[in-house]
Amino acid sequence: MRHSVYLDHNATTPVDSVVLAAMEPFWRDTAANPSSLHAAGQRARQAVERAREQVAALVGSEPKQVVFTSGGSEANNLFIRGAAAMRPPGRIAISAGEHACVRRPARSLVRQGWQLVDIALDAEGRICRRSLADAAAGGLALASFIAAHNETGVLQDIAALAAQARAAGAWVHSDAAQLAGKLPLDLRELGVDALTLSAHKLYGPKGVGALVLGKHIDVRPQIEGGGHEHGLRAGTENVPAIVGFGAACELAQVRLAAESQRQQALRDRLVVGLQESALGAVVFGADAPRLPNTVFLAVEGLDGPLLVQALDEAGFSVGNGSACSSSDSGPSPTLLAMGVDPALARGAVRVSIGRDTTAEQIDQLLLALPRVCTGMRSLAAVAV
Amino acid sequence: MRHSVYLDHNATTPVDSVVLAAMEPFWRDTAANPSSLHAAGQRARQAVERAREQVAALVGSEPKQVVFTSGGSEANNLFIRGAAAMRPPGRIAISAGEHACVRRPARSLVRQGWQLVDIALDAEGRICRRSLADAAAGGLALASFIAAHNETGVLQDIAALAAQARAAGAWVHSDAAQLAGKLPLDLRELGVDALTLSAHKLYGPKGVGALVLGKHIDVRPQIEGGGHEHGLRAGTENVPAIVGFGAACELAQVRLAAESQRQQALRDRLVVGLQESALGAVVFGADAPRLPNTVFLAVEGLDGPLLVQALDEAGFSVGNGSACSSSDSGPSPTLLAMGVDPALARGAVRVSIGRDTTAEQIDQLLLALPRVCTGMRSLAAVAV
Repeated sequence: MRHSVYLDHNATTPVDSVVLAAMEPFWRDTAANPSSLHAAGQRARQAVERAREQVAALVGSEPKQVVFTSGGSEANNLFIRGAAAMRPPGRIAISAGEHACVRRPARSLVRQGWQLVDIALDAEGRICRRSLADAAAGGLALASFIAAHNETGVLQDIAALAAQARAAGAWVHSDAAQLAGKLPLDLRELGVDALTLSAHKLYGPKGVGALVLGKHIDVRPQIEGGGHEHGLRAGTENVPAIVGFGAACELAQVRLAAESQRQQALRDRLVVGLQESALGAVVFGADAPRLPNTVFLAVEGLDGPLLVQALDEAGFSVGNGSACSSSDSGPSPTLLAMGVDPALARGAVRVSIGRDTTAEQIDQLLLALPRVCTGMRSLAAVAV
Repeated sequence: MRHSVYLDHNATTPVDSVVLAAMEPFWRDTAANPSSLHAAGQRARQAVERAREQVAALVGSEPKQVVFTSGGSEANNLFIRGAAAMRPPGRIAISAGEHACVRRPARSLVRQGWQLVDIALDAEGRICRRSLADAAAGGLALASFIAAHNETGVLQDIAALAAQARAAGAWVHSDAAQLAGKLPLDLRELGVDALTLSAHKLYGPKGVGALVLGKHIDVRPQIEGGGHEHGLRAGTENVPAIVGFGAACELAQVRLAAESQRQQALRDRLVVGLQESALGAVVFGADAPRLPNTVFLAVEGLDGPLLVQALDEAGFSVGNGSACSSSDSGPSPTLLAMGVDPALARGAVRVSIGRDTTAEQIDQLLLALPRVCTGMRSLAAVAV
């Protein structure tokens, strides 16, 4: 098995070895159910509560505000569906760049009498404050804005957007799955009512995430049963994964300052290299504040999924946008909402840097890209 | 840390070392997102699909009928809520012994115009066919019957119950989380429309389960987003856990015949030992066919949670009923539905045997019980 350079960290990250080591005792030796009364069960319970503290510390909440879920998608659904169940049907505002796991449950609310209002993106992928002001004028019951975009990496001014939406009456949620662990994050500073986190985006295990809830709001559980997670999410706690999530949050906090700086240097090295090349590469959202690890680009005339495949063969694993919809045929809805030409949007490729990424790997990618693109162009010429 | 004899396998099982070894490569080396187009992603995809075949093989379904979820509670909720969304509100029948993660979502349907019909249990914990016939006379839209009870271990004649409920128009579901891996299980022979499985009940990891769906029925997804799991359950697949679930199902199938026989002998050794002692122990459901590993008992005059605690101090981890509600104060609703005297029901303690349990451990428990019970009685006498 050839070892590829992995540059798809926004799709998922490998589990850090420190995190794995933290999880290890909970597979067999302390495998008890945290709801069991015996000492083995209570040791598992303590581990879950310790992890809750670690997750809370990363986002500046109290531990009891953290509701563990099976991941980011479930957390987003729990907010959208669970908060909607607590309010009379009204207007829900989401940005045109929201992930499918916010957009689809929001769209499903329409069946229950809700009105879905799309907030526009500007050309750089920022959520448009004026568009939100227009929507807010009609009053809002719910709003959800992605904190850092999974494809473009563009950062939103969540504090300002949240203030605007809350003034219009909304409970405001932010999907911070891509932001957490990459940049500082504080529930109170953001002024939102709920935050979504996902462990596998920050070197924790798949299968666990959290909805962090403001103290004054309540959601209806979407998985009902035993009284787990303060009655908000039934199911035997996924103890090893929750422990791993906690360890990953603690590790992310420790490394955050140095890593974000280091990765941003690599990101900028890639962007400068692209600009200096004769590739004709476009970097989306280049003029907006972005995640330190993300470059969403297109090479004019080249198809994104084919470029991903060609780069894969050349030894680089990159994405072609949101992994969750990478098998969809159309161009990224987010790019279209930014006004990007559909032909160019179809060429989109996402490079997302991680903890193990080195400057050498970025240089190798910059060296490989012209060769790969030339190869694709000559193949295309033959095909014509 | 004192090493206790673990006899609470119906609450959760340790992950088998074979299963752990199967999961291991997917934490770091093959940690990619199965939705990614690159080769690393496709290796993860193949691993998920291989696991789907292994799970399907255990229950006699086709792989495409298996919908992976975060566990049994989610699978039960997905059926109850998701099937209800596809049918006009009608009558839903569930047994009086259903787990909270069937009962609570079923009860929530009442808000949407559904009528919840409870099917009685007989004194041995078997679902009453006559009670179901009465309910069926009024027509049924949905029904859910637990295949093997988590507390009593009593086995239901699911094929007969399903035929009865289907004849009345119901889509029939069975929660087989406790049955799978302990006794043979075949979707077609049971004649149900959906089955729930949970990995951590059969020596697989926590955080993964499945709803196995009949080919002719459709449920509305309860976590919406990317098109994962044929559009029925969004969220990045929990690859290591799914791989572990598949390996656990394969292992369970290989070991099933020998293990069920071996554990049944241990179970019977315990029951005979209890009968021969002067404890005055009652075994619930003793005259019904039961799981080979489960003994649900009470010692007259002793409180269940206190007995669990006293046994824990004596080195035995046992349960006091459904782990998910073990912190609830009241006696088991299932025992009350069986007509057990509340005072006796409050004394319930569950011993559930596992793969590592030995005859010596059962004998140790039989030796310890009289001493522990005598100690509790003298404490109680002092307190009076």
